[in-house]
Amino acid sequence: MFLQNAWYVAGFADEVEGDRPLARTLLDEPVVLFRGSEGRLAALADRCPHRFAPLSKGTVCGPERALQCGYHGLKFGLDGACVHNPHGPIPVAARVKSYPVVERHGLIWLWAGRPALADAAYIPDYSEFSKAPEDGTIRGYLPTHCHYQLIVDNILDLTHADYLHAGGLGNGSITRSKGAVTDISPSSLRVSWSVTNEPAPPAFDMHLREQGQLSDQWNEVTWTAPGNMHLRVGATLHSESREQGMEALTLHLTSPETSTTAHYWYWSTRHFAISAEANAQIRKFIEFAFGEQDKPMLEAQQRAMRGHEFWSLKPLLLASDGGAVRVRRKLNLLMQSENPTDNPNLADQSNPAPMDLEQSRRRI
Amino acid sequence: MFLQNAWYVAGFADEVEGDRPLARTLLDEPVVLFRGSEGRLAALADRCPHRFAPLSKGTVCGPERALQCGYHGLKFGLDGACVHNPHGPIPVAARVKSYPVVERHGLIWLWAGRPALADAAYIPDYSEFSKAPEDGTIRGYLPTHCHYQLIVDNILDLTHADYLHAGGLGNGSITRSKGAVTDISPSSLRVSWSVTNEPAPPAFDMHLREQGQLSDQWNEVTWTAPGNMHLRVGATLHSESREQGMEALTLHLTSPETSTTAHYWYWSTRHFAISAEANAQIRKFIEFAFGEQDKPMLEAQQRAMRGHEFWSLKPLLLASDGGAVRVRRKLNLLMQSENPTDNPNLADQSNPAPMDLEQSRRRI
Amino acid sequence: MFLQNAWYVAGFADEVEGDRPLARTLLDEPVVLFRGSEGRLAALADRCPHRFAPLSKGTVCGPERALQCGYHGLKFGLDGACVHNPHGPIPVAARVKSYPVVERHGLIWLWAGRPALADAAYIPDYSEFSKAPEDGTIRGYLPTHCHYQLIVDNILDLTHADYLHAGGLGNGSITRSKGAVTDISPSSLRVSWSVTNEPAPPAFDMHLREQGQLSDQWNEVTWTAPGNMHLRVGATLHSESREQGMEALTLHLTSPETSTTAHYWYWSTRHFAISAEANAQIRKFIEFAFGEQDKPMLEAQQRAMRGHEFWSLKPLLLASDGGAVRVRRKLNLLMQSENPTDNPNLADQSNPAPMDLEQSRRRI
Repeated sequence: MFLQNAWYVAGFADEVEGDRPLARTLLDEPVVLFRGSEGRLAALADRCPHRFAPLSKGTVCGPERALQCGYHGLKFGLDGACVHNPHGPIPVAARVKSYPVVERHGLIWLWAGRPALADAAYIPDYSEFSKAPEDGTIRGYLPTHCHYQLIVDNILDLTHADYLHAGGLGNGSITRSKGAVTDISPSSLRVSWSVTNEPAPPAFDMHLREQGQLSDQWNEVTWTAPGNMHLRVGATLHSESREQGMEALTLHLTSPETSTTAHYWYWSTRHFAISAEANAQIRKFIEFAFGEQDKPMLEAQQRAMRGHEFWSLKPLLLASDGGAVRVRRKLNLLMQSENPTDNPNLADQSNPAPMDLEQSRRRI
Repeated sequence: MFLQNAWYVAGFADEVEGDRPLARTLLDEPVVLFRGSEGRLAALADRCPHRFAPLSKGTVCGPERALQCGYHGLKFGLDGACVHNPHGPIPVAARVKSYPVVERHGLIWLWAGRPALADAAYIPDYSEFSKAPEDGTIRGYLPTHCHYQLIVDNILDLTHADYLHAGGLGNGSITRSKGAVTDISPSSLRVSWSVTNEPAPPAFDMHLREQGQLSDQWNEVTWTAPGNMHLRVGATLHSESREQGMEALTLHLTSPETSTTAHYWYWSTRHFAISAEANAQIRKFIEFAFGEQDKPMLEAQQRAMRGHEFWSLKPLLLASDGGAVRVRRKLNLLMQSENPTDNPNLADQSNPAPMDLEQSRRRI
Repeated sequence: MFLQNAWYVAGFADEVEGDRPLARTLLDEPVVLFRGSEGRLAALADRCPHRFAPLSKGTVCGPERALQCGYHGLKFGLDGACVHNPHGPIPVAARVKSYPVVERHGLIWLWAGRPALADAAYIPDYSEFSKAPEDGTIRGYLPTHCHYQLIVDNILDLTHADYLHAGGLGNGSITRSKGAVTDISPSSLRVSWSVTNEPAPPAFDMHLREQGQLSDQWNEVTWTAPGNMHLRVGATLHSESREQGMEALTLHLTSPETSTTAHYWYWSTRHFAISAEANAQIRKFIEFAFGEQDKPMLEAQQRAMRGHEFWSLKPLLLASDGGAVRVRRKLNLLMQSENPTDNPNLADQSNPAPMDLEQSRRRI
């Protein structure tokens, strides 16, 4: 059960190049991504209607740059219609499902729901990342064995940095600062943590004008449904301007692969330490934090849930969960509006009354 | 759900040698194969009735050459009856199921159904393979993660060579020639593709008297239920006799291991290039084509079907599917005759009305 | 379905040391073991009530030595109550299940049932192992893919040594001697095999005063519910006293991890060959016998049962099964007394009437 009428990230634009199609399961549906003539992207159901071979095992070929099945040679165009049958006339039924797909600022976006509703205007503007200098940019992809909403929860509650990333991205300052949730729209919100006159976490402190001094810090996560997070974090010496300090921007983009696995892309840039050498060092640090700290924790969390639905386990809500809980509510409301009658369970979930929700409401 | 009253290949005869029993699951039933006195073959259920240890973990021993359980020492004869209990008298119930089994021309055949119906006369005659010279023979075994009928489908539609094996076994000539289906019996049929005045596929061309010339080609698959295919392929320079050309015979033999995995044995011989050196080269080629091209495609196809029954996915039938579809119908009719009343689904499947069947009927 | 009100071995005491908690699933429940102040052991449900991260990914910290969740920093005390919430006041509901746990003579024992019934007096006295000299002691842990009762069955019928360990721990003498079952209590019994005037199995013979002579042997297994076996085996030259021979004591301790996997600890000591060199040799031998012979057979047996319940497969009972069958009956009676009304199946199982039970009753 995923939100259907939404743009999901399907990959970095350069993951689909040349004649090689890319297989990617999204929302539990196998999809093949490929480029037709003039590099135009297409996303089709990754199963030939003839003998069910994955079309992703074929190749893009011919002047028309259609996707040819590697098993018996049927060819399909960007819209999923069969354009060539080497065994006879093209059967009317020879067609595979196609998905609206848009390439924008270095990312591929796929619309999972009704094609008529797909409007590229809904895609968040992440152009600052595709414009950033190469030596100040770090990208990565982490296939992660957890429900994609756990990844959303993770970023929406940055206090985890103080524990999971202690000694690197966190030193307790975020937890002490308490977050503030700002509602933006039915499908977006922002959580901010503002820290004043505290030591900076080691990973930030090392990039300040002087080390080991008191600092001011800012952390802002802007979530856009379903799984897109834009994170701005920065620090400056106490009372100095933001411009004198350091600031990094990171996209955390996640899409469901199945109900227990997720795609997780990150894309980071910054306004300091722009050099190949600095980039290599920071990349190492980020790969450790996201790949060796976040990912194992998210996967352990998924396993510990043992197949149960999140709310059914009655999570203990804390003050720090304000943003994540509101995001889950928004997603449930969006899903309800897609399925107004047929899902009483979802209705229940949109109105969770877990143990400490009242408390968390008061705090944030 | 598999055809029961049929001979299934259980292995090459020399897979069972000496005192070591062989464990092999067939039709979802664990079976142990071993040789008793004078090398006589036996096939028993691979589970000791005492504590359920697999008998295949035991050894053949004693002058009676019985199969002794490796856990607590019970011994079983060729017919499955316990012949020795070291802990006391032999209990009446100490017996395991035995399967009729026949060794013929280098293959082991197992009868899965009612023993009273097992008649070795039904076993197809593949003697030409056991008589072939060693330097002109190539054998192999490919455990494959797909339903065994997908392997049957694969061989019954040789047009796949033009795409999956393009540049080796195929160059489009089979697809252009259109196949002809000949009904032989309720449990066998033949599909032939006859090619005239076309370039030969590279793997054949290199063995013709002159390279790069136009040729005539013949391809004939003879299927015998449930999963036995005898394939004759050959080429000769255009208008020359078959004897002046090259011809290869290949058995493609498959038996279900489970509903999603199959045993796949191939056994190839030919009338040309009989030498150890040529054999080594051709073996490499065959292992690549069957093991690195067919097998991954078959397994991808199985995964793409995601547990659904073949017809339930409404395959788009093309002209080239004539043989494969008739084989599926024949198998369904044979299964129906075994279970006349209790399987309305099978009845439905024997009469598929998928999208383009009418078209394929007209074409073949 | 496991016996609840019982002490299960959860590990060797030194498996839980320092600040590192230990994750261990017992009776299908994920448990975290850790040491609080003064080294006191605690066993908690291994799932933080906040976001379901496994607490075993956290650390023991602070002067109070509480277990801190590694994700968002909640701390829990030995009794499972939250003692610190960095995000606000401690919610009343912030508590995880705790299990009664006792450290005794080098082993950790966990009570799976109602805490009020946990009485450490029920724990069997295995003090002789913790007192044994290091050079005469061998311990090991074997995670095994089978139901824990198959491990119990294995040790309760030592005739398996004559076949599975032939040429090492067995030479047929145990099978020839027939076992005698002595009922001790509703939750314990003993099986003894007494061998007179027979060659000793090779592994024992090599430690006798003279090799290749006739010997007397004794083998005694004392089972204590649910999965604890104390094994005494020894041999001496025929007619000589036990003191002149060799004797080894081995604990075989098993607890269910899930319904198809078990924890298996062994702990062996002896009255002969006390030296580092002899210990290393004997360790090698034991690791082979338990790890390369017993474990693969137990796992093969589990697979061969294909998910079926033991009695439903109608095992053929032999004379040698007397002890194992009585143990299964005792376990079923103990489980029935825990669930007097709600499990008619268990009632049936406690009264199995398999094929040769009468015979086995007469023999033992």
